[in-house]
Order: sequence, then structure tokens, then C-alpha cells
Amino acid sequence: MPQTDPARLDAVLADVDAHIDESVARLCDLIRIPSISTDPAYAADCRKTAEWLAADLSSLGFDASVRDTPGHPMVVGHDRSGDGPHVLFYGHYDVQPVDPVALWNSPPFEPTLVPQPNGDTWIVARGASDDKGQLMTFVEACRAWKSVTGSLPIRVSILFEGEEESGSDSLPGFLDQAAAELKADVMLVCDTDMWDDTTPAITTMLRGMVSEEITIRCASRDLHSGMYGNAARNPLQLLSDIVASLRTPDGGVAVEGFYDGVTELPAEIAERWKRLPFDEAKFLKDVGLDMPAGEAGRTVLEQVWARPSCEINGMWGGYTGDGFKTVIPAEASAKISFRLVAGQDPDRIAEAFRRHVEARLPADCSVTFKRHGRSAATVMPIDSEFLQRSLKALSEEWDCEAAVAGTGGSIPIATVFKDRLDMDSIFVGFAKFDNRIHSPNEKYDLSSFHKGIRSWVRILAALAETK
Amino acid sequence: MPQTDPARLDAVLADVDAHIDESVARLCDLIRIPSISTDPAYAADCRKTAEWLAADLSSLGFDASVRDTPGHPMVVGHDRSGDGPHVLFYGHYDVQPVDPVALWNSPPFEPTLVPQPNGDTWIVARGASDDKGQLMTFVEACRAWKSVTGSLPIRVSILFEGEEESGSDSLPGFLDQAAAELKADVMLVCDTDMWDDTTPAITTMLRGMVSEEITIRCASRDLHSGMYGNAARNPLQLLSDIVASLRTPDGGVAVEGFYDGVTELPAEIAERWKRLPFDEAKFLKDVGLDMPAGEAGRTVLEQVWARPSCEINGMWGGYTGDGFKTVIPAEASAKISFRLVAGQDPDRIAEAFRRHVEARLPADCSVTFKRHGRSAATVMPIDSEFLQRSLKALSEEWDCEAAVAGTGGSIPIATVFKDRLDMDSIFVGFAKFDNRIHSPNEKYDLSSFHKGIRSWVRILAALAETK
Repeated sequence: MPQTDPARLDAVLADVDAHIDESVARLCDLIRIPSISTDPAYAADCRKTAEWLAADLSSLGFDASVRDTPGHPMVVGHDRSGDGPHVLFYGHYDVQPVDPVALWNSPPFEPTLVPQPNGDTWIVARGASDDKGQLMTFVEACRAWKSVTGSLPIRVSILFEGEEESGSDSLPGFLDQAAAELKADVMLVCDTDMWDDTTPAITTMLRGMVSEEITIRCASRDLHSGMYGNAARNPLQLLSDIVASLRTPDGGVAVEGFYDGVTELPAEIAERWKRLPFDEAKFLKDVGLDMPAGEAGRTVLEQVWARPSCEINGMWGGYTGDGFKTVIPAEASAKISFRLVAGQDPDRIAEAFRRHVEARLPADCSVTFKRHGRSAATVMPIDSEFLQRSLKALSEEWDCEAAVAGTGGSIPIATVFKDRLDMDSIFVGFAKFDNRIHSPNEKYDLSSFHKGIRSWVRILAALAETK
Repeated sequence: MPQTDPARLDAVLADVDAHIDESVARLCDLIRIPSISTDPAYAADCRKTAEWLAADLSSLGFDASVRDTPGHPMVVGHDRSGDGPHVLFYGHYDVQPVDPVALWNSPPFEPTLVPQPNGDTWIVARGASDDKGQLMTFVEACRAWKSVTGSLPIRVSILFEGEEESGSDSLPGFLDQAAAELKADVMLVCDTDMWDDTTPAITTMLRGMVSEEITIRCASRDLHSGMYGNAARNPLQLLSDIVASLRTPDGGVAVEGFYDGVTELPAEIAERWKRLPFDEAKFLKDVGLDMPAGEAGRTVLEQVWARPSCEINGMWGGYTGDGFKTVIPAEASAKISFRLVAGQDPDRIAEAFRRHVEARLPADCSVTFKRHGRSAATVMPIDSEFLQRSLKALSEEWDCEAAVAGTGGSIPIATVFKDRLDMDSIFVGFAKFDNRIHSPNEKYDLSSFHKGIRSWVRILAALAETK
């Protein structure tokens, strides 16, 4: 009986259901090790967590080991029982600090099961959701497949890192070094949210970013606006003129060549987004706004996921204290970022921005640029077979159409893997918006954990059918 | 022999020359009383200074007295020996603090005569220039007239205040109370600079000012630019758009009605300014600039003295620290001021500005305005007989054409006198740019003092000829 046989899949799902209490118990064991990566006092606990995971993967038949890095160790495991496509699953075993401890209702590293009025149960602990609960959904799915069939439906490698919450400093170097070992057909990540409580989601579009700081200098010192006002160039006026020039009247970005290479949203995604339960008016209303501000004629979801933007993140100059000072400052500064979509090259965008600013500068003024960060957008093509099969598997488990989501922000590790290993990522997560990750009383719904495991069981089967 | 007889004038000038050492000695006595108005520890010294001045005026035959106020006292004196026009001379006897004392080369309140390579002598002390040295030029001129002729050529009242360096808080109330007593045909003030070392100046144009602070609010809280960028209105972008809209492409101010009532510079003033030794290029070069920024086709002097302006004095919002934060702030603020010229009403300008801002605000954003100050411009008409006769007298003393100057900034007391007593002011001062007023080692050139006295002797005679 092939791994993709429906009866076999049902048997694996039944095994998940039958042993869910043991799965929860293992998750609780993992949670109890306080793997706070940013605090050196917990370095030994981070290593202990890595060892726990390597041991658990080994018990499933993975060739798993703890790998040293200049920071906290990585866990790498390979299962060679399956064939067909090769996936790399990524998760992180480190967690955020727990301060302020006084706000926790139970000890942060003592997982507490709290029954809810809706019949669900919350697993309350630091890391219950981010990312120990989420990464264990995949491990438990592998366990069920192994337990029932003796093998996995596809080739699976796993990488767990221990520094995601503190900057992933060791990740790029490790990927360079272990590239051949880790390169797979696609990466699977479980560190994101559901669309809503009942709709699963795969995040396929991550915007990139160029962030720049500019300082414009006019006079060689601060001037009195009475003595010089009108005749001396005011850098706050000049900076405002330049910032105003960055946007077109219809809400687009006016930097020359900015939209070069940007393509329209594929029809399938546009259609899917139309069907999504998303209330534009409410999205804005929740933050006190009534009208979308960006390009006219585009939906809010398209604006924030699929269209590049320009944002002024900070601006300052002159006198900003109480009262008034009639100063013409010598300089004025702004922090400006561009969110990028597929087709836009961060370096070219940064250069185009710098040319845009320089072209608007009078000859007796100057500008300095400070580079803060550049990353390209990462996009999993909607016609990717991995993506389409995963969507179908998710939709079957949750009995509704899985959402294809974007995220307007960046997920740094996605860029790192794209740059180092040229791998696209499928982000499937089962967390809910109210999981309070990074905050006191972080929780993961038992249903998220349980159906998350079942979802991966189905996805592993579905990917086996990939040609 | 009438007071305006040339021989009599020469006799008075000769008397000034003959007794200049005694004049300097009196100035030094006055300087030695440390009348720092902002520091309550010197309140008794301020009163002592007022008493010294009242006694000195009385010794000249003035009906002089010290008048209490809620703050430091005023000195008021009237001389009724002359007839014809009635002038009110204003000066201030209080001085700035002396910190940092360590930077003084001699004790701040021990006037020190320091010979200079050019043959002049500096009187070094706090208040030597600002304003004890300057106000005593007028007192000594009166003394010489009295000494030689027994009377003054015109009716003279004098007001010395003791709070000019600390805000002139008591002045408006005192003027209201003493209006009938102090109202004169014109006010004379000696608290300004020469045009340059050899060219005297009368300041006749003071720009007014409207200063406003605006805060623009969009979303109800700070937003993540990844989640909301494009779709949510960015208040820094909006504020920049509004600031950019305040200026026309040719450097004018774009607020509707802003130039209503603004007239072109009288031809006589334009001609005089053309003749002034003023190097536009150097004026800008000294502060690191090459090109005037304001209205095209107008000279720098016209720009800063006779044309209204709009300046951005401060601007802030979003993240302004080190590094980068991808925030769309909830609000952004700016401090904006308008320098006004004759014909512009501060309240109307403020209202026009507020309408300009409000008209550019999307319906789901809001703005709050904070009023910081409003004052009208004060201008002595160039055809005023007082002004023309004073210019002639100054030109005779200094043997060159006296400058008719503006000042782009405001002189607060000018506005107070205009508002309360409806008096125009003639600002004649003999200070030099390098006098270090408000700084350690403040000085007044002996020649400034001496020729200042002689200048007032001539002006008093000249004003007697006024019809």
C-alpha cells in the first residue's frame, strides 16, 4: 500500500488522535527547559533543549545531531526512510524572556493546561506557541507516520535553530557551511498564524525592505530665523519637499523606476483574496482610520501584501522641546523605508531613492545616506505544485478553503534561506492572534496543536504525490 | 541764540569731548552695580541701579523717580526745560548673568579699560554695551546740553526698565498705568548695532511673527509598517506634504491671502539699501550657503527685512533614535513660524495658515494647533520727519550716509510700546557686532560711547527743527 493510500492516511490520523495526550506530554517536557536565547544565563538550557530535540528525532529514526555554532547550537536531522521530494523543515527551539514574571498566572516554564469555556484547552507557558508548540506539530506528525507505516512519505530534513529570538546571528554562517546537507526542494516553516480561528493559511509572499536614513545639511550652523528667514535654505522645508515628492498624487511611489519589474497580482491569488473573510473597513477602523491611503483602485490586502510602499518611519530636526525657538536648523533627518515585492532589486531601489533625493538638492546643500538594511521580497509562486498540494491538504483537514496569505513585513530567516540556499518557503502555522507570544501568559490551543499535527500528516502525504 | 544754532551745537559737542573721562567714570559706576534681573539674589542691586539712575537724572534737572512694579522697578524722568516735539527715550538697566565666570579675563562687574592696537579702548564688563553703555550715551548727551545751554532742545521723557533681559513681564502693565505720562511723539531706543564699524544705522523695520505648533494624528496608535504600510495614512508623509505646500516653487509663501496688504518697498529705501555696503554672497557664504532661498528676484536684504516668510523651526515624529524601527507613527508635529511685515494682521495670517492645513487633511485625520505667539510688524515710515532728521544728524556725526536698516527678528519692547501707546520707535545704537553681549568679556568701544553721545547731541538738536 503506497504512502498516499487514503486508508493509510486515515490510519496515521487516527494514530495522532489516539496518542494526543502523549504528544502533549512531550511538548510539556520540551517547554520545561527554559531556552531563553538572549540571556547568557540560559546557555546551558539552550544546549539541553537542542539535545532533547536531537534525542527525540533520533528516537524516530532520524539521523540527528546537535551542531555547535559560535552561539547556541543547531539541531539537524535527516530521515532517509522516504523517497520523492525532499523538504527541509525549519523551527526554532529558543524562546523570549519571561519578564515581567509578576504578570504570569502560572510559572512560565511550567506548562499549565487551562480548560476554556468553548471546550478547548490552553497550554499556557513560554514557548507553548512560539515556537515549541508549532515545531512539535511537525515532529509529532513524523512520529505518527513512522509509528503506523515505519517510514515517512517523502524525504525529510529538519533544522532547529536556537537564536531566532535573538537575531539568528549564527544562521547565515551555518547555512553556508552546511549548504549541501540542508538544500532541499522546498522549506516548510511552522511559525505563523492561522487566517482566523477556523481558516488555515499558507503565507507565500513576504515583502522585502530597503531602509535608509538621510540627513540633509544646509547652513553650516543653526541660524536665527529672524536674521536669515527667507534667504537661507531651511533643511526641514527641503526635507519635507523631498518627502512630499516621494509619493504621487494617486498614492503611488514617485521614485523613478520604482515599479520596474513589478507584476500584477496573479488572477488566482486575486480571486482567493476576494473570497477571504476580510473586512477592509474594519481593518482600518480598528486603528482609527476610515480611508485606505495607498494606490487608488487596489484593495487593502493587495496594498499591504503585494504592492511596494514607501514609509516615513521617523523625521526630526530643529527645536522639538516645549515652547518655541526661532531657529533655522543646520540639518534635518528622516528614516525612510521601502517595502519591496517580487521583481524589485533592493540595491537598485536604494540607488534610485538616493538619486531621487540628490536630484532635488540645491547645489549648496548636501545629503548623507545611512544604509540600515536591504532584503528582497520572497514569493512562493502560486502555481508551485508544493504549494497547491499543501493548500489542498490543509483545506481537507480544516474543511474550508485554506488562505493564501502575504505578510507585509519581513520574516528574516526566509530571506536568509533564499539568499544562502535558494530555497522557497511554505509558511504554515497554527497559532492564533491571541496567543500572546513574547508576552506573559503565552498559550497555544490544544486544538491548534492537535489539528496542526494532523495538518502536517496530510501535507506530508500530499507532497508525496508531487511529480 | 536758539538751541539749533550751529555754534551752540558745536559748543555742546566740545563739552562732550572735554568731559568724556567723567562720562566714562559715571558709566563705570553704573556698571559696578550687578543688576542681573533674572536672578532674585540681585533684586536689591537692581533697585540700587534704578536709584542710581533716578538720582543721576535728577541731578540733570529731570523730574525723576523710581517706580515700583511687581518685578524690578522702573525709572521715569521728565525734563520740561525744552519745548517742541516730545520724545520718550527707552533703555534697560538690567543685565544678563555672567556665567561662565571662569571665561572672563577680568571681574565682570569691575569695568576694565583695555587699550586696543587700533588706538581705541575697550570698556570690558557685563552691561558695558548691553545696555548700560548705550543708555548712558543718551544721558550724557542730555548732560552736555544742560551743562552748556541750561536746557534741552526738545521735551524729553526717559523710561528705564529693569527686566528686559528676563522677559519684560512688568512692562505692559506699567505702560497701561502710566500711558498718559509716557505717551510722546516718538520713542528713541539705544539698544541696537551700527551697520558696520564706521556706518551708523537706524532700524526702522521690525518684522512681526506668528508662531504655531501643529500635531497631525492619523491612526489611533503606532502601526507596524509591514502590516499597514501603504494602506494606513502616514502622518509624517502628510505633514511633509503640508509643509511642502506652504511654499510656492518660486520661493514665495503659498498660504491663501498671505500677501494681502503687503506693499512693495518704498523707492527711497530700495535705493538706500542698494548703496549700503552689503555683500549678499558673503552674508550667505559666512554660514556655508551660496544661493538665496526665498522669493526669486528680490535681494537678500529685502528678503530678510521687508518680505514675510514662513519657516519650519522644528519637526518630529516616529522613531528618531539609533538604528531603525519600521513604525508608522500615530502622530507627527511641527513648529512653524511666519515673519510678518507691515500690512499683515497676525490673527488673519494664523487663521489662513490653519485653514491651509485643515484643507489638506483627509477626513479620518485630525490636527491640533497650539498658539505660541503673535505680533505685528512695526515700521517707522521712511518719510517720517523724525526719522529723516535723525538720519541727517547721524550722517553728519559719522561723516557717511547713515543706514536705514530692518531687522528680520522682533524686538519685543517695540511691539509692546506700539500696542500700548501707539508710538513708533527709532532704534539708534552704537554697538558693534563683536561686543559679545550676553557672553563673557562683553565690551563697548570707548569710541562707540563717545561718538554715541555726540550723535545724540546732534539728534536732539535736529529733532528741535521738526515742525
